[in-house]
Amino acid sequence: MSLHIHKPYVLLMGDENDPIYAKTGLGIAQWDADNCVGQVRLGPDTVDAGLPDVTLEQALQTGARTVVLGVVVIGGIIPPATLSVLREALEQGLDVAAGMHQRLADVPELAQAAQLSGARIIDVRVPPENIPVGTGKRRTGKRLITVGTDCALGKKYTALALAREMADQGFDVDFRASGQTGILISGEGIPIDSVVSDFVSGAAELLSPAAASEKHWDVIEGQGSLFHPGYAAVTAGLLTGSQPDAFVVCTDATRSHMAGWPDFPLPSIGEVIELTMLMAKRVNPDVRCVGISANTSGLAREEREPYLDRLSKEWGLPAVDPLDGAVAPLVDALREW
Amino acid sequence: MSLHIHKPYVLLMGDENDPIYAKTGLGIAQWDADNCVGQVRLGPDTVDAGLPDVTLEQALQTGARTVVLGVVVIGGIIPPATLSVLREALEQGLDVAAGMHQRLADVPELAQAAQLSGARIIDVRVPPENIPVGTGKRRTGKRLITVGTDCALGKKYTALALAREMADQGFDVDFRASGQTGILISGEGIPIDSVVSDFVSGAAELLSPAAASEKHWDVIEGQGSLFHPGYAAVTAGLLTGSQPDAFVVCTDATRSHMAGWPDFPLPSIGEVIELTMLMAKRVNPDVRCVGISANTSGLAREEREPYLDRLSKEWGLPAVDPLDGAVAPLVDALREW
Repeated sequence: MSLHIHKPYVLLMGDENDPIYAKTGLGIAQWDADNCVGQVRLGPDTVDAGLPDVTLEQALQTGARTVVLGVVVIGGIIPPATLSVLREALEQGLDVAAGMHQRLADVPELAQAAQLSGARIIDVRVPPENIPVGTGKRRTGKRLITVGTDCALGKKYTALALAREMADQGFDVDFRASGQTGILISGEGIPIDSVVSDFVSGAAELLSPAAASEKHWDVIEGQGSLFHPGYAAVTAGLLTGSQPDAFVVCTDATRSHMAGWPDFPLPSIGEVIELTMLMAKRVNPDVRCVGISANTSGLAREEREPYLDRLSKEWGLPAVDPLDGAVAPLVDALREW
Repeated sequence: MSLHIHKPYVLLMGDENDPIYAKTGLGIAQWDADNCVGQVRLGPDTVDAGLPDVTLEQALQTGARTVVLGVVVIGGIIPPATLSVLREALEQGLDVAAGMHQRLADVPELAQAAQLSGARIIDVRVPPENIPVGTGKRRTGKRLITVGTDCALGKKYTALALAREMADQGFDVDFRASGQTGILISGEGIPIDSVVSDFVSGAAELLSPAAASEKHWDVIEGQGSLFHPGYAAVTAGLLTGSQPDAFVVCTDATRSHMAGWPDFPLPSIGEVIELTMLMAKRVNPDVRCVGISANTSGLAREEREPYLDRLSKEWGLPAVDPLDGAVAPLVDALREW
């Protein structure tokens, strides 16, 4: 029932010169380069995702299944050069996928090309239809979710880093994407924030279905924050439907207030643990917090380790910066299950 | 930005013989008979809402603005007799409103009739468009919300009873409807459970906008329960956007488990207060619980008063059964603000 995008990908980087606006493409190349045959760059200074430069034809020959738009489109107007590549891809039978607010499927020339060739347009902000109400029924397998003191401080990154580390250590594990970029990276998932509120926890149940084995772990990309004045509903529904066994609290060492909501101080790690436990215990009485993941890039290099040590002592939990690649301490606790 | 239905109403009771399926019409007649010119009943045994029986023509002559479908339509097929009344109403320039899952606007002959006459079709399950993300900004006026140990145990009824009692006592007060039946009763509101999760708290902010006076109270119809495995997202978003000053916990004296979710015991009043306070304090530090509203109709008559007394002693709050009409003790605490 979740979205499914065929790999391998070819990344369309358009003619974007600013890495900020190329985050989707860069993220896919960082986390799943093995499933990318290359990148299509249209300008001389286009951001380089570190993949081989290819033409659409070369991408097709090397087995690409989907062209992923790796750049943000500001204002909803797809640049003409990019649009013609997307249309040509569809005409040649490649699927195209994007995470824009504007739907590719609403662009008449793309919709028509897709209809003629039978290729698919996948707008990853559009949730699947007929999502049921959450049941609260327990499912086979273990689940870890990343929660946060705020939005946009590393919940997706932490989940990806944990899933990779767990796989490296021999865990049977899947990353479960709940947002656009995560879905494009993993090739499947449900954009939880686009689901009608009555069905959010039902969507979370679909996102992380019963596993084949009790030992299997889903590592679920969290969204928003239970304390967020705008997005608490998204977080509450995702948490409830996920029935987590374990959660990791994500924060940012130098953020004092919620990004974009300057009247709202960041909640403490302790407040996040308390509220998450209260809600999650109803759907999984054994839930517990297994660690803290903090983005310390805003601190001077020599301050980072002491900061993480303080966090760890204060909350009695391992505390890591996933950007340093050192999430192994968070995985240790998961062996006990 | 919320839905708005013109009053006075005429209630279309169809040919429904069972009061259970006529709850919408009966609710409107109970709470706002003054704004109903009458009822249209199509069968000899049709449920009686206690209003004058009228024809559409008589309703028009006495000033009706909207025909409200007062009965549930099972299976989504509007009975032909009802359909022809709705079409005739639209043709004569009366708006029609309904809270069905199936949208009236999707019925071709109704859509066409509305287009020809300029009358409106109002499907109250369809939220307004372009709802913004919640801001968390404080707004003038006071707000009370009803929360619950479960769904369907009196949050709407309690809010309506409180708003009526407060008006009787001279408060400047509005009932704010967040669900279909409440919207039909009050003539306006937003169906919170139909809003996309990213925008639920934004919808709640629209539902209860800044008041003209700091003394004004909005009494907001709560939805779901923070502890509900299916609907926690709806509750969390509505609570966050409402920024309540006060809340009343609604429960049912004889319900042991969540209705339809037999694996989930009802949370205690104390758990509901604790979790509601934790979330609501972030958007309104002064929030507090002002009382308990319990449906005691499942208890023997002589057990009701002792039960309410026990609740009151246990939680140190006034406890009432709103079906007895005795919500005044809950209003007393609101004078202090």
